[in-house]
Amino acid sequence: MPAPAGPTVASPHDAADRTPAPLAGGTRGPEALRPLLGTVLDALHEGAATRSGPLPAGGPEAVTARVRARAAPALPETGTGAHEALHTLVGALAEGAADPAHPHCAAHLHCPPLALAAAADLAAAALNPSLDSWDQAPAATALEALTTRALAALAYPRRPDPDALVTTGGTESNQLALLLARETAREPAGETAREAAGRATRPLRILCGANAHHSIHRAAWLLGLPAPLTLPTPTGTLDPALVHQALTDPATTNTPTLVIATAGTTDTGRIDPLPAIATLCRTHHARLHIDASYGGPLLFSDTLRPALNGLDHAHTIALDLHKLGWQPVAAGLLAVPDSTALHPLAHHADYLNAPDDTHAGLPDLLGRSLRTTRRPDILKIAVTLRALGRRGLGDLVERVCTTARHFADLIDAHPGFDLYAPPTLSTVLFRPTPTDDPTTAQLRRTLLHHGHAVLGRTTTPEGLWLKATLLNPHTTPDDLRTLLTHVEGQVRR
Amino acid sequence: MPAPAGPTVASPHDAADRTPAPLAGGTRGPEALRPLLGTVLDALHEGAATRSGPLPAGGPEAVTARVRARAAPALPETGTGAHEALHTLVGALAEGAADPAHPHCAAHLHCPPLALAAAADLAAAALNPSLDSWDQAPAATALEALTTRALAALAYPRRPDPDALVTTGGTESNQLALLLARETAREPAGETAREAAGRATRPLRILCGANAHHSIHRAAWLLGLPAPLTLPTPTGTLDPALVHQALTDPATTNTPTLVIATAGTTDTGRIDPLPAIATLCRTHHARLHIDASYGGPLLFSDTLRPALNGLDHAHTIALDLHKLGWQPVAAGLLAVPDSTALHPLAHHADYLNAPDDTHAGLPDLLGRSLRTTRRPDILKIAVTLRALGRRGLGDLVERVCTTARHFADLIDAHPGFDLYAPPTLSTVLFRPTPTDDPTTAQLRRTLLHHGHAVLGRTTTPEGLWLKATLLNPHTTPDDLRTLLTHVEGQVRR
Repeated sequence: MPAPAGPTVASPHDAADRTPAPLAGGTRGPEALRPLLGTVLDALHEGAATRSGPLPAGGPEAVTARVRARAAPALPETGTGAHEALHTLVGALAEGAADPAHPHCAAHLHCPPLALAAAADLAAAALNPSLDSWDQAPAATALEALTTRALAALAYPRRPDPDALVTTGGTESNQLALLLARETAREPAGETAREAAGRATRPLRILCGANAHHSIHRAAWLLGLPAPLTLPTPTGTLDPALVHQALTDPATTNTPTLVIATAGTTDTGRIDPLPAIATLCRTHHARLHIDASYGGPLLFSDTLRPALNGLDHAHTIALDLHKLGWQPVAAGLLAVPDSTALHPLAHHADYLNAPDDTHAGLPDLLGRSLRTTRRPDILKIAVTLRALGRRGLGDLVERVCTTARHFADLIDAHPGFDLYAPPTLSTVLFRPTPTDDPTTAQLRRTLLHHGHAVLGRTTTPEGLWLKATLLNPHTTPDDLRTLLTHVEGQVRR
Repeated sequence: MPAPAGPTVASPHDAADRTPAPLAGGTRGPEALRPLLGTVLDALHEGAATRSGPLPAGGPEAVTARVRARAAPALPETGTGAHEALHTLVGALAEGAADPAHPHCAAHLHCPPLALAAAADLAAAALNPSLDSWDQAPAATALEALTTRALAALAYPRRPDPDALVTTGGTESNQLALLLARETAREPAGETAREAAGRATRPLRILCGANAHHSIHRAAWLLGLPAPLTLPTPTGTLDPALVHQALTDPATTNTPTLVIATAGTTDTGRIDPLPAIATLCRTHHARLHIDASYGGPLLFSDTLRPALNGLDHAHTIALDLHKLGWQPVAAGLLAVPDSTALHPLAHHADYLNAPDDTHAGLPDLLGRSLRTTRRPDILKIAVTLRALGRRGLGDLVERVCTTARHFADLIDAHPGFDLYAPPTLSTVLFRPTPTDDPTTAQLRRTLLHHGHAVLGRTTTPEGLWLKATLLNPHTTPDDLRTLLTHVEGQVRR
C-alpha cells in the first residue's frame, strides 16, 4: 500500500494537511466540534435571516439554481476545508429551507424540532453508537430499552410487558405492522405446523379506509401481499358498518385479516371510531393495527387522552414523535402489547448475535429492527421526555390543538373563506369562497412561489382544500391572522 | 380545548414555564442551541474521560444498571429541564459508549465520524427538512440531487445519467436492490403485458455466496421472495465456476436471476472477482447487484480504485459512507447506472405529489425512497465531500488500509498469534496459537468485559478468529502494539 501522497508544504486546506481531519468522538472530539458548531450556528442564523420567510422565493428552478451555484462541484478533487464547507452548505440549506419553526410553514406533519432535541441528536452523531449489537452501543442499548418500554406503557397501560421498536417514522411502523401480521397469519399461535403450511397458501387480507396513510398500500406491495381492500370514507373516518360488512363477507371466512384504523389522519386529523372497530375485530378474530403516527401523543395530555380510548386494543400501534413530539426526523415507534409479539422479527447473523455470545449474556438486538446499523434516535426522545416530563409534552400538544381551534375560528368568522370542519387535532382545512379546485391548487403554489406560506392540500368529496397542519407551539394569534392575510392577498389578485 | 394549565409561580424547570421550550430553527434557534450544545460537549467530554477505555467495563448487566440508575424514570410526570436532561443522558451515553474514535474499538464496520460530519448533521436536525416533498425541503432536494449524482458518477464513470438513492445503510440498499430486481423480473423491459403476466408466476431466483451479507437473506424474506441459493465460499470469495454452474442449470433456464457479489465482505474484507462474475451475468442474462457497502470508497483513491474493476457492470451497487466514509449513521446509498432504473419505485400520494403539482414543476420525491418522511442525511455527506475533496477521502481510505497491513505484520511477526491472511481492505483476522473456538470466543468477551478492547469475530473453515476492523485514520502503530498487548494479556491469564 503506498504512503499517502500529502503535499510537503503547509496548505490552507485542512483536507490536505498531514494530520487527518479530527474525529467527533473520544476526549478530544468535543474540542474539535466546538469551533465547527460555531460555524454551523452562524450559517444557520445567516441563512434564516436571508430567507426571512417560511421558505425561499422563486420556486424549484430558482432554488435549485442558487444551491448549484454554491454547492457545485459536489465532489471536488481537492477539499475546501471544514469551515468553508460547513459555512457554504449549511448556509445554502438554511437559506433554502421550508423552516417549520416559521409560523407560516404549516403544510405537513413536519414539526419544528425543540432545540434540546436537536442538541441531543448531536451526541448521537458524535458517538455514533449502532444498535445492531451490544458491543457497538452498550449504554444506548440500555437507554433504548428503558425509554421504549416507558412509551409502550403509555400506549398499553394495562399490560405487564408492552414493548416498542424504534423506526424511521410512521411509514416503517406501518410496514412492520403488516409484516408482523403476515408472519402471524402464516403461523398462528397454537396451530400445528401442518395446519400452518395449509394456511400459508391463503395470504393475509388487509382492510383499510380510504383515509389510511398511503404507506399501508406501499407496504403491502413491498411485502408481496395482495392490495388492501379499501373502504370509502366520505366523512373522513372509517365506518364500522362497512368494516362489519367486510369482516362478515362469507367469501373470506377464515381468511386471516388485518384491519387498519387511523388515529389522526394525514388529510383531516380525524380519529377513526376506535372502540367500535376494536370490538368488531375482537368479535370476528381480525387483527387490528392502529396508525397513531399523528394522534398518539394525545396520550401525554390528561385532557386529550380520552380521544384515544380503544387504542390499547390494537395488536400494533404506530407512533411518531417527529410529528406531535417535536423531534428531528427520525423518531418513529411501533408499540406492541407484549414483547413476545416481536418474535417474528428474530434474525441471526453470526458476527452480531452468535448463540454462545447471546448465551453468555450479550443482548441480541437484531430482532429489534429490519435495519442492521442503526443510529440511537432514542437519545433525543429520552432527553425530551426527561426535560419536559409527561405534563410538559401534554402542554405542547394542547397548545397546538388550541392554536388550530383558534385558526378555525378566524376562518369561520371570515366571509371570504370556507372552513371544512372544526379541527379534531391540529389540522385545519379551508379555502376561499367561491373557488374551484384548479384555482385552489394554484393558490397554494403561488404562496409557495412567493415564499409567503407553506400550506398543504387535501381532497374531500367536497373538492380540494388548503390544509394547515399547525404543529408549532410558539405560533401566536397574530401569526395566524398574518397567515390568513397572506392567503387573502393572493385570492384578491 | 381547555387552556394549558401552567403554574402561576416561576419554576426552576423550564418545562413548566409558560413559554414553551425553544425551537431549533428560525433566526432564534441558533442562540437557543448555543448553550445547550455547550452542555452536550461538556457531557461528552466528561463521559469519555470517565470511561477512559474503548468501552465501559463490567459487561451488559453493570452498564444497564448504571444507565438505569441515572436515566429512570424515562417518562417522569414533571420535567427536569433541558440542561439537566442533556447533561445526565448524554453523559450516560458517552460514559457507556463503545467509542469508535478509541483506537481499541475495532470490532465492526462501525466508523468514528469526522467532527465536521457530525457538526453538519446538527444543521439537518435543527432545520428538519423532510425529503418526501419539495415544500418540506427546497434546498435539501437540490443538494441531494447534486450530491447523489456526483457519487453515482464515481461508481458509473462511463454512464451519462447515473443516479443514487440515499438509504439508512447497506441493509436498506440491498433490500432496494432485491426489490428493483423483483419488479424488473415481473415486467422486463420490452416484454408484452401478456408475456409479463406469464412471467409473474416465476419468482426471481437469487444467487449469492455464503460470504454475502445477512441482509440479502433477510431482504428476500421481507419481499416475499424464495430464499437465496447460497454458494459455498470456503476461500472467502465467490467462485465464478460455481456461479457459472448455477447460471447454466437446465432446471432454471429462463428463470429471472439476480446474482449478488460483494466488494468488501463483512467477515474478511475480501472482494469477489467482479470482472469474471460480471461477464457471466452478461453472458447468461442475469442481473447483477454488487454490495460495495464496505469497499466502495476505494473509488476515492487513485491507487486502490483498480481493486473495484468491474463494479460498473452491476445493475445496482450498494454503497455506505458510514463505514469507510467516516459519517455518522445513516449514510447509505444505492447507485444505479441510469435514473430510469428507479422507475419501479414510483409512488403516488395526493398530498405529496399530486399530478397537477408535478406538472407545475414541483419535484416528485416519493420514488426516491420507501420512507415517507426522510431526514437529509446527504448534508453531512456533501459537507464531507466538499471539505476533504476526493483526494482527502482517498487519503483516509489509504491510511486505514495501511494501518491494517501494519497490524497484520505485527501479528505475523508475533509467535503467540496466527494471522488468517494479509488484509484486502482494513479487516484483519487473527487468533492466539494454540487455541480452540470456545477459548477464542471467551477471549473476545473477556476483553469486552474488562473494557480493554472491542474486537469482532468471524468463522472460516479454519474455525473462529478474532476480527479487527480498522476504520480509524488516527490509529498509530503504538495503538496497534498496545491493542495486541491487551489481547496477549488475556491469553496469558
